[in-house]
Amino acid sequence: MTVDKTHPRYESLLFRDKIVKAGEQGLLAPSALISHGRGEAFDYLIGEKTTFPAKRAMYVAIASMIIAENPVISVNGNTTALVIDEIIKLAEELDAKIEINLFYRTPERIEKLAKLYEEHGYPNVLGTDDDDLEYINNLNSPRASASKEGIYTSDVVLVPLEDGDRAEILAETGKKIITIDLNPLSRTSKKSDISIVDNIVRAIPLMIEIAKDLKEENNLKLIQDIINDFNNEDNLQESLQEFKIKEEE
Amino acid sequence: MTVDKTHPRYESLLFRDKIVKAGEQGLLAPSALISHGRGEAFDYLIGEKTTFPAKRAMYVAIASMIIAENPVISVNGNTTALVIDEIIKLAEELDAKIEINLFYRTPERIEKLAKLYEEHGYPNVLGTDDDDLEYINNLNSPRASASKEGIYTSDVVLVPLEDGDRAEILAETGKKIITIDLNPLSRTSKKSDISIVDNIVRAIPLMIEIAKDLKEENNLKLIQDIINDFNNEDNLQESLQEFKIKEEE
Repeated sequence: MTVDKTHPRYESLLFRDKIVKAGEQGLLAPSALISHGRGEAFDYLIGEKTTFPAKRAMYVAIASMIIAENPVISVNGNTTALVIDEIIKLAEELDAKIEINLFYRTPERIEKLAKLYEEHGYPNVLGTDDDDLEYINNLNSPRASASKEGIYTSDVVLVPLEDGDRAEILAETGKKIITIDLNPLSRTSKKSDISIVDNIVRAIPLMIEIAKDLKEENNLKLIQDIINDFNNEDNLQESLQEFKIKEEE
Repeated sequence: MTVDKTHPRYESLLFRDKIVKAGEQGLLAPSALISHGRGEAFDYLIGEKTTFPAKRAMYVAIASMIIAENPVISVNGNTTALVIDEIIKLAEELDAKIEINLFYRTPERIEKLAKLYEEHGYPNVLGTDDDDLEYINNLNSPRASASKEGIYTSDVVLVPLEDGDRAEILAETGKKIITIDLNPLSRTSKKSDISIVDNIVRAIPLMIEIAKDLKEENNLKLIQDIINDFNNEDNLQESLQEFKIKEEE
């Protein structure tokens, strides 16, 4: 596919193209493309821009990860296809680990994704088949598998583009769950502790900047205030107000 | 993929599975899965049910096809994957032709789709590479190709799940264009003469029933009244009112 630069929704088409290519490379389950389409529709409805409630949630997310004991970023095929370099940069800024978790887990896709992280300068990705995997809450399901060194022992987990089933399992562990999901009323958004209603292609780069800022401030009181002042339910309600059906350009 | 019958959105998952399988069989361009996802999101926002404005548009659509000289149903991979048997039945009810039109046209996909229609009891599908294809308005683009016997000479065309570019090209021909599109403000919905804002998996079976009803009534005055009383812009506005962000079950 070649992307026409004059198309009214050029940027959206560029990222769609990344997803299509990742699918062709075997990095995604077929239904991952369908998920991407759902995201496109919700993004279209918030005007393809980052809202104020989304930014607020990002500050709280970054503050929480800065003071975490063992922060982990959980990645799947879509996240990797869209923002692999930005995820690696964010992990480095936050001293966080990166762990692969797939809804439809196959050894082939796990291996391809791990190799991709290696090629992008990040050789230590967790959640591979060589890793020491445990089952959260003893649920014997691939949805519940987690790396012992990573999500299994983590206190704060960022899970962008997560499935509702897995988000629920994670939420029940008592860990602080941060999600990035364009649907403010999905189970994932509702079950998480911090729900960022935004497109990850805008959110992750912005979160890198926020991480730099907060680290430079180096003010633990500020970080605690950011976290304590936040109410996810209220913030989701504010996110919801930003949605409207609007004219297509 | 096995579909869990207890899942809150079981039916949606069943159709998602049909799309995934059609993709694996080579019937779809990869971006067709993304389109399906966008449709899922819009369907979720109208509560996965057929609205009154959608039904009204269906009556007008069927009335228009009944009195047409050469009505044609334009099909792509997604339409075929989701409702092939229903499309064939609707074509038979309306003495309409079926023509394949693909946004990303390849000889392989055209051949596979034509074979599928044959296997489902419909050997005369138009728009194949053996067919006599012309370019609408002399636009030398695969988006503008049309069968001489079918869309090229048709007066009324039903184009479910159509792309905006092609919908615009078709609308410029003066033919009556009927679309089924879940986004009431897409270019396709706005450029068409009759826009049915509904999921095709609900719309086509309902349209078969409407066709039977109107044919049984056999009342030309009624049919003309249905057509004359309709205003697509007003009806799209009413469709729009049906959308809301709602709680996920």
